[in-house]
Amino acid sequence: MTNTVEKWGLFELELQGSDAGNPFLEVELSAKFTYGDTVIEPAGFYDGEGVYKIRFMPSQVGEWTYETRSNRDELDGQTGTFTCIEPSKENHGPVYVHNQFHFAYADGTPYRSFGTTCYAWVHQGDNLEEQTLQTLAEKPFNKIRMCVFPKHYPFNRNEPVYYPFERDADGNNDLTRFDPKFFHHFETRLSQLLELGIEADIIIWHPYDRWGYAEMDEETDYRYLRYLIARLSAFRHVWWSLANEYDFMLTYKPVERWDNFFKILQNEDPYQHLRSIHNGDPNANYDHTKPEITHVSIQNWDVKRVKEWRHQYGKPVVNDELEYEGNIPFYWGNISAEEEVHRFWIMTANGGYAGHGETYMHPDDILWWGKGGVLHGDSWKGIAFLKEIMQDTPAEGLTPIADVKDNGLFPAKGTTWYWTRISGGMADGYYLIYLGEHQMKMMPIWSEDGNYDVEIIDTHDMTITPTTVQVFDADTMGEQTYSERAMPTYYIDLPTKPYLAVRIKRR
Amino acid sequence: MTNTVEKWGLFELELQGSDAGNPFLEVELSAKFTYGDTVIEPAGFYDGEGVYKIRFMPSQVGEWTYETRSNRDELDGQTGTFTCIEPSKENHGPVYVHNQFHFAYADGTPYRSFGTTCYAWVHQGDNLEEQTLQTLAEKPFNKIRMCVFPKHYPFNRNEPVYYPFERDADGNNDLTRFDPKFFHHFETRLSQLLELGIEADIIIWHPYDRWGYAEMDEETDYRYLRYLIARLSAFRHVWWSLANEYDFMLTYKPVERWDNFFKILQNEDPYQHLRSIHNGDPNANYDHTKPEITHVSIQNWDVKRVKEWRHQYGKPVVNDELEYEGNIPFYWGNISAEEEVHRFWIMTANGGYAGHGETYMHPDDILWWGKGGVLHGDSWKGIAFLKEIMQDTPAEGLTPIADVKDNGLFPAKGTTWYWTRISGGMADGYYLIYLGEHQMKMMPIWSEDGNYDVEIIDTHDMTITPTTVQVFDADTMGEQTYSERAMPTYYIDLPTKPYLAVRIKRR
Repeated sequence: MTNTVEKWGLFELELQGSDAGNPFLEVELSAKFTYGDTVIEPAGFYDGEGVYKIRFMPSQVGEWTYETRSNRDELDGQTGTFTCIEPSKENHGPVYVHNQFHFAYADGTPYRSFGTTCYAWVHQGDNLEEQTLQTLAEKPFNKIRMCVFPKHYPFNRNEPVYYPFERDADGNNDLTRFDPKFFHHFETRLSQLLELGIEADIIIWHPYDRWGYAEMDEETDYRYLRYLIARLSAFRHVWWSLANEYDFMLTYKPVERWDNFFKILQNEDPYQHLRSIHNGDPNANYDHTKPEITHVSIQNWDVKRVKEWRHQYGKPVVNDELEYEGNIPFYWGNISAEEEVHRFWIMTANGGYAGHGETYMHPDDILWWGKGGVLHGDSWKGIAFLKEIMQDTPAEGLTPIADVKDNGLFPAKGTTWYWTRISGGMADGYYLIYLGEHQMKMMPIWSEDGNYDVEIIDTHDMTITPTTVQVFDADTMGEQTYSERAMPTYYIDLPTKPYLAVRIKRR
Repeated sequence: MTNTVEKWGLFELELQGSDAGNPFLEVELSAKFTYGDTVIEPAGFYDGEGVYKIRFMPSQVGEWTYETRSNRDELDGQTGTFTCIEPSKENHGPVYVHNQFHFAYADGTPYRSFGTTCYAWVHQGDNLEEQTLQTLAEKPFNKIRMCVFPKHYPFNRNEPVYYPFERDADGNNDLTRFDPKFFHHFETRLSQLLELGIEADIIIWHPYDRWGYAEMDEETDYRYLRYLIARLSAFRHVWWSLANEYDFMLTYKPVERWDNFFKILQNEDPYQHLRSIHNGDPNANYDHTKPEITHVSIQNWDVKRVKEWRHQYGKPVVNDELEYEGNIPFYWGNISAEEEVHRFWIMTANGGYAGHGETYMHPDDILWWGKGGVLHGDSWKGIAFLKEIMQDTPAEGLTPIADVKDNGLFPAKGTTWYWTRISGGMADGYYLIYLGEHQMKMMPIWSEDGNYDVEIIDTHDMTITPTTVQVFDADTMGEQTYSERAMPTYYIDLPTKPYLAVRIKRR
C-alpha cells in the first residue's frame, strides 16, 4: 500500500475479506478519512475474489488518518495513515464550475473544454483502444464523452470484450453481481486518459442496448450508480454524465428517477464531480436549472442560441453534440469539417463550450464517434487552432459582449443588431469576435481611446495577423456609413472574406 | 383615349376639370365600370393642372361601360365604353396567393418569387435609374422592394429628384397637396418594371426620413394611402408593403393605425393586390395571422425557422431580408455570396420564398440595396440557378416534406431527425432536398419501388448531374447503417461534399 499520495491523486486501501454470500448486496463498507477538522467518508466496494477496496482523493496536503467501517467484522475498524504531498506539475485537480459559466481546475487553472466523443471506445479490444489513445495523445481534445456500457447501434454491432455484470453461458445477466474484470479494464483506460490530461465525461446510461442495461429496474440502477461512485469518484478527471439521450429512455426511466440519480450523486460523491445529462431531441433539454445539475450538457445544432441557453440555465453550457463531422446517412453525423469548426467558434466566442465527433463511413465500421481509432477528417485542426487561441483568454472566461453593458468597445444599444448575427465574447480588456459568414470591410468600434492590440484571425487558413486600430473620420466616412446617433470613434480594416475572427486586447 | 385594353391592362379615363380650391382635398371622384353583373368602382384622383384621372384594370374580356361620379358637376355622369381584349403573351395578370402557401398569376401560371431590394432606386435621377433597369433586365429577379418615399440613411444622403408633396422654397411640405410630377415619374418606373415582368413590392412607409414623411398624422396617412390606391392599384404588378421596418415607427404610428391601413386596402383596392408588412427587429414580426394580411413578409436571418413561420401564420412566407450579400459594417448587410445563396435554398426548399439585397461599399455610395446601379457580387448567379430549378417544380408549389405524412419516400417518423437539419420540399411526385452543410455519402430512401429520376445538384458549381436510385442491400449494409425498425429500401450515392441538393421525380 502506498503511504504517500499526491494531492488529488488516488489513495486506495485494499482489504482482504470473505466472498461468502453476495458481497455486492450484503457488505457495507466505508472509511472515514480525517485531516484536522476535515472528515470524508467514501464508500468502499467489492472487487471480487475476497478483495474489498476503498478509494479516496485527498485535497489537502498533510497527514491523513483513516478508519474503516463495515457490517463485516474483518473489514471493520481498520486504521492507518498516509501522507498527501504536493501535486505533480500536470495535476491541477478536478474540474469544477468557475465564474458561473466556466470551468477551472481545483488549483485555479482555467479549463477550456474542447471535448470529443467516442462512446464505446473501451469496448473495442486492446488494439483499437490503444490506437484511440495514440490518437488522443496527438489531438487537441481535453475531454471525452464515453459510455460505461457497450453500445448497440448502427455501425456498432460488435460484442464488447467485457461485461459489467456477471453472465451465464446463455448471456443472461446476474444484475446483482458486477464483474470486476470489466471495471479493472475500464479503470485502466480511465487512468490512461488521466495521464493524457483528458477529462472523462462518463455516460452512465444510454438507450442503445441489447444486453439489458438500459432497462434495469430502479433498485439495480441505484446500486449500479453507487458502485460507480465508490469505484470511480476518486479519479480526479471524472465527470458524471447521467445519460446520452435520456429522453429516449423516459418510458422505462421517468424524470423522477433521473432526479434521484442526481440527488444520489450530490449526496454521495465526496468530491462533487461535475454532473449533467444529455438530451436526444433538441427540444427535450433536461431542466438544467435544477440545483443538483452543475452545468448544461446538450445536443443542439442551432448554435447561435448559446446566449439563450446561458440565460435560461445560468450555468456553463457545453454543446456536446452540435452535429458531427462526417458523411453517414444520419443528419446528426454528416456536416463538413468547416461547418464543425464554424459551430465550435460560435459556441466558444459566445462564452460556451463545444464537443467534437467524427462519423465518416468506414469499410470496417470503425467510426471515431462510436469506436475510436484514428481521425479521418479535418475539423480537429481548426479546433486545435481555436483551442490555442482560447488558452490565451483571461482566466475568468468569456462573457457574451451583448451581456455586458459597459463593454468599452461597442454600444450597448448594439446588442440586438450586432450580437444575434455574429458572435463576440469578452473578459477584462480582451475581446474575441467571430464573424462567421459575415465579411464586413470595416468593423466599427466605439472605444474612448484606440489603445488596443488587434489581430485578424483567419479560421480557415489558421493564420493570425496583427493590424491597427484606425481613427474613424466622421467628416469623410461618418455621413456615409453611420447615423449621427451612433458614430464610432475607431474602426478596424478587414478583408472582405468570411470566416474571420478579430482578437482585441487592451494595451 | 384607348378604347381597347387588354385583360389586366390599365384603362385610364382622363377628365378635364377645374383646379380651383384644393382638388386633392375637395374633389370626390370615382367611376362605375360594368360588365354584365360585374360592377367595380375605383376611385379617381387629381393629377394636377385641372386633369383628373380614373384608372381601371379589367379582368374580364368583353365590352365594358363606365359612368363617373363626382361632387364636381363637370366630372360627374361621364359615360363611355371600351373593349377588354385577350391579354398579350407576357401578361399573366396580378399575382395572388395560390394553394395557401404559394403564389400564382391570375391566369394560373405559378409565380415563384425571387425578389431583390432597391429601396430608393426611383430617387436617383435618370442615369442611375436607367442603369438599374438595365441590370434588372439581365438578372433573375422577378420582384423588387421599393419605397415610394426617398430614404435618409447611411449611404443614402442625397436629395431625391422629385418630392411626393408640394414644398415651398424652404423645403416645407404642404401635405395637403401631392405633387403629380413625383407620381408621373414613379409611374414611369413602375411601367418599366411591368415591361420587365418584375412585380413591384411597393413600400408605403418607412422610418428613414428627414423630409417629414415618416411622421405624418393619421389623416394625412389615410389620404396618402387612398391616393396611392387610386393611382397605382390598376397596375397589375403592384404589391402593397405597408412598411419597411414598421416596428421602428411604432412611437408615431401605433399598431391600430397599421391595422387601419390594411382595412382601407382591403376595402378600397378593387383588385385585392397582395398586402403585407415588414419588421425590423427579428422578434417583432407583425401578427401576420390577421385576415387582412395576404402573406408573410419578414426580416429574419434564421432561415431554418421557415417551417415554423409557415405553421404559425398559415400563409406564404417571403423572407425579404435574410441579410444581404455585401461588406458594409452593418451585420444585416455583409454576408458572403455563398451564404446568401445558401439561405435562399433553405427558404425555397422548405416551401418559402426569399429576397436578395446587395450592400458592397462603393466609392460613391452607390449600393444596390439603396440606390440600384449594377451588381458587384455573385449571389445573383446562384439565385438565377435556383430560380431555373424552381421553374421546373409542380404548379402547386413545394410543401415541406416534414409536413407530409405519406410522402412516398421518407418515413414519417423521420420528421424530427431529418427535417430540422436539412431542407426538403415536395409536390406531387417531385422532391427537392437541399443538404446545405450536410454531406452524406448515401441518402437512404424508403420508396416502395425505385421508379424515380434523380439528379444531384451542386449549388456552388451550379451543375445538375443525373444519377440512379440504388437498391439498399439489407444483408450487407443494413446491419451496419440502419436499425431494424427503419431499414430503407433504396438509396442514392452522393459525393462527400457540402452544398448539394437532390432532385427526385417520380417516373
